[in-house]
Amino acid sequence: MLTPAKIIQKKRDGGELSPEEIRFFIGGLQNGTVADYQATAFLMSVYFQSMTLDETVSLTRAMLESGERLDLSHLPGFKVDKHSTGGVGDKVSLILAPLAAACGLVVPMMAGRGLGHSGGTLDKLESIPGFNVRPTPQRFQELLATLGFAIIGQSEKIAPADRKLYSLRDVTATVDCIPLIVASILSKKLAEGTDGLVIDVKVGSGAFMKSPAEAKRLAKTLVQVGTKLGLKMRAVLTDMNQPLGCTAGNSLEVLECLEVMRGKGTTLLQEENGAGSADLRELTLQLCAHMIEIGGIARSRTAARKLATEKLNDGSAWKNFRAMTEAQGGAVDWIDTPSKFSLGPQKLILRVPKAGYWVAANTQTLGELLIELGGGRKRAEDTIDFGVGFLFQKKLGAKLKAGDPLCTVFAPEGMNLQSLESSFLDAVTLSSTRKEVPPLVVDTLE
Amino acid sequence: MLTPAKIIQKKRDGGELSPEEIRFFIGGLQNGTVADYQATAFLMSVYFQSMTLDETVSLTRAMLESGERLDLSHLPGFKVDKHSTGGVGDKVSLILAPLAAACGLVVPMMAGRGLGHSGGTLDKLESIPGFNVRPTPQRFQELLATLGFAIIGQSEKIAPADRKLYSLRDVTATVDCIPLIVASILSKKLAEGTDGLVIDVKVGSGAFMKSPAEAKRLAKTLVQVGTKLGLKMRAVLTDMNQPLGCTAGNSLEVLECLEVMRGKGTTLLQEENGAGSADLRELTLQLCAHMIEIGGIARSRTAARKLATEKLNDGSAWKNFRAMTEAQGGAVDWIDTPSKFSLGPQKLILRVPKAGYWVAANTQTLGELLIELGGGRKRAEDTIDFGVGFLFQKKLGAKLKAGDPLCTVFAPEGMNLQSLESSFLDAVTLSSTRKEVPPLVVDTLE
Repeated sequence: MLTPAKIIQKKRDGGELSPEEIRFFIGGLQNGTVADYQATAFLMSVYFQSMTLDETVSLTRAMLESGERLDLSHLPGFKVDKHSTGGVGDKVSLILAPLAAACGLVVPMMAGRGLGHSGGTLDKLESIPGFNVRPTPQRFQELLATLGFAIIGQSEKIAPADRKLYSLRDVTATVDCIPLIVASILSKKLAEGTDGLVIDVKVGSGAFMKSPAEAKRLAKTLVQVGTKLGLKMRAVLTDMNQPLGCTAGNSLEVLECLEVMRGKGTTLLQEENGAGSADLRELTLQLCAHMIEIGGIARSRTAARKLATEKLNDGSAWKNFRAMTEAQGGAVDWIDTPSKFSLGPQKLILRVPKAGYWVAANTQTLGELLIELGGGRKRAEDTIDFGVGFLFQKKLGAKLKAGDPLCTVFAPEGMNLQSLESSFLDAVTLSSTRKEVPPLVVDTLE
Repeated sequence: MLTPAKIIQKKRDGGELSPEEIRFFIGGLQNGTVADYQATAFLMSVYFQSMTLDETVSLTRAMLESGERLDLSHLPGFKVDKHSTGGVGDKVSLILAPLAAACGLVVPMMAGRGLGHSGGTLDKLESIPGFNVRPTPQRFQELLATLGFAIIGQSEKIAPADRKLYSLRDVTATVDCIPLIVASILSKKLAEGTDGLVIDVKVGSGAFMKSPAEAKRLAKTLVQVGTKLGLKMRAVLTDMNQPLGCTAGNSLEVLECLEVMRGKGTTLLQEENGAGSADLRELTLQLCAHMIEIGGIARSRTAARKLATEKLNDGSAWKNFRAMTEAQGGAVDWIDTPSKFSLGPQKLILRVPKAGYWVAANTQTLGELLIELGGGRKRAEDTIDFGVGFLFQKKLGAKLKAGDPLCTVFAPEGMNLQSLESSFLDAVTLSSTRKEVPPLVVDTLE
């Protein structure tokens, strides 16, 4: 007879669990046969013994089957989504979803909130007043049918076993475990009803995966397991050794996206000497090209890239973003007139104390400092101050003179910024010798 | 700041926990700072990463401090106890406690109930009608002051953190982990107020430790940790590749002990062709000699052994056992007239189907078959049938002819014994070639 203890012991001893055993365990979490204290012992066994590909497939499937699954088969077109493992300043989804839809794909994007030091797409969208990230499933399907995309929060009915396991992993030091990460990501994405998935695995000082080898292992497992589960998969390893683009903070990131979609000078970022968004734009185009390619819309990566660039340049992505904002109840006048977003109100320009090349950043610390400012949550119930954040004047590799501005901090009224300034500068390494800046895209797995 | 998750992560990553961290974790189990699902993730990390000696000392101390500790310092004499890791037919405590007291030691023995396939001293004593294993702490101290020993059940107030952890380990495959076993045993023994402890680590097919190397590692850790915590320690590794003595089953084991204490032929065991109790008697004397030696009562092991043998032969142990029975409310007339114990009522003699040397037994299976008979518990709430069990006509190494009796089964009314007979005989290996019988005492650690 299957018992939770026997399954834990089998995994503890390095055995390979059968689909039945995994289904029994995950199902048991929901029907009460498996106690939380057994789940966590199991998770820790998986941490130490890992899981084979087949076990990870079974785990993903069991978690998917724990909840509802959207059926989008009646919608014409290839359904494709993108998932990022999370970083600082990663606002790609806000541009990518409307852009991919403009290229003829259907993008049923279920996004998340900020997690740890990393920001969340839903929080960014909510900095647009009125934007509703919780439409009904019917409304979500309507949006997909009319706009070809929508960005919403995950419903409670999607993969409830994953939500339960994640909340347990979070407090038992079992988050950083590849099969568990893979099953968590893919079970939710499969539930969206997507046909294809492009994964952006971040690697570097601001990523959850700090080592390229680990990140590559994660990316590879995601592609293998997703493929076994019938998804068209693509994964890219991208650099997170500095924030992506020139902003970190919810309203600031929306402003940056508007600028990328509408063209330079649209918002105040230029006026504040923002470092520009070349990397954000480039990564978005590359990810979109992958989506187009696996969706079969273009014959080659080059043609896909060309299509994406056209649709970004001709304002189609912007038009789509505006339509989504309107359809999801957001203040269209704010995105039409970005000066309506209020920042700060305190503003402090951080300057480098000495000359040198900017060679490294502790990007996780920068993400944590954003939370200190109020731009993220320490606890799930915290509210977010959308107007705070960082606007970078420089990117990694810049040659700086003593006193050069590095970053403008937008902070809440009354906050003493002295300790923040010193923590920020501690997270930044200047060197007298130039160092190679890591490439934006480290690797591609297909 | 200490958090449960950080402590789990530190252990998971192979770090050595400080006494403060361990105290925080174990204390947190009681005050609610640490959830059960965090405790089990921690236990599984300990399973994989183990613990240093210092950590095990801290864990033992934290578990000891979670409850009450008996103070026996006002009693004259050296307080010493024995602990066995458990096996089949291990009834040593029933003879050893009164014998050691007869040798001048004080024995505050807190014993346990049957656990898994292994029997428990309390269950055996309760086969004597009226025997009360739960006197008040005051009464326990009175018994120690007057008789020099008593055998009682552990109170709920002793090491409650151990009870909680044990119940979690039991259902999460984290029982067989040396530092956890050591802390569990020693925290309870330290709480008795003992000065010294002799550990009988069983090894073989009926022991929890099946491998001699593992058993030795456990014994060594027990001695090291106990010594660091101020106990005079001794450990012996003893054979559990067959039941100890010639009986397994509660009343049968009491009868066997009476026979060892009063002399051959006292009970019906001889009449039923019991294989005798040479090993039980020998092990009891050896363990008693260790207790005498660490208690400083004899100058040498030889002198200690001599004293123990005298006190067993001259009826002092028997007198003490009888006095304990009376003092703890047991039916003295039963132990005076052992024929009052009723066995069975079904009786079946198992005979070997072919000739050969008896070379091996799956002793754990024999213990499990005793539970099938009703002589042990499947669940904590089960009641025990004291009269059932096995009386062995032969010991390992015996040369048998086809049809020779191997064992008499005493079974409850109406039970069909066919499948039991075949399972029993499956657990017994006969061979045409003689094989060395494992020595009774495999190793001694001091």
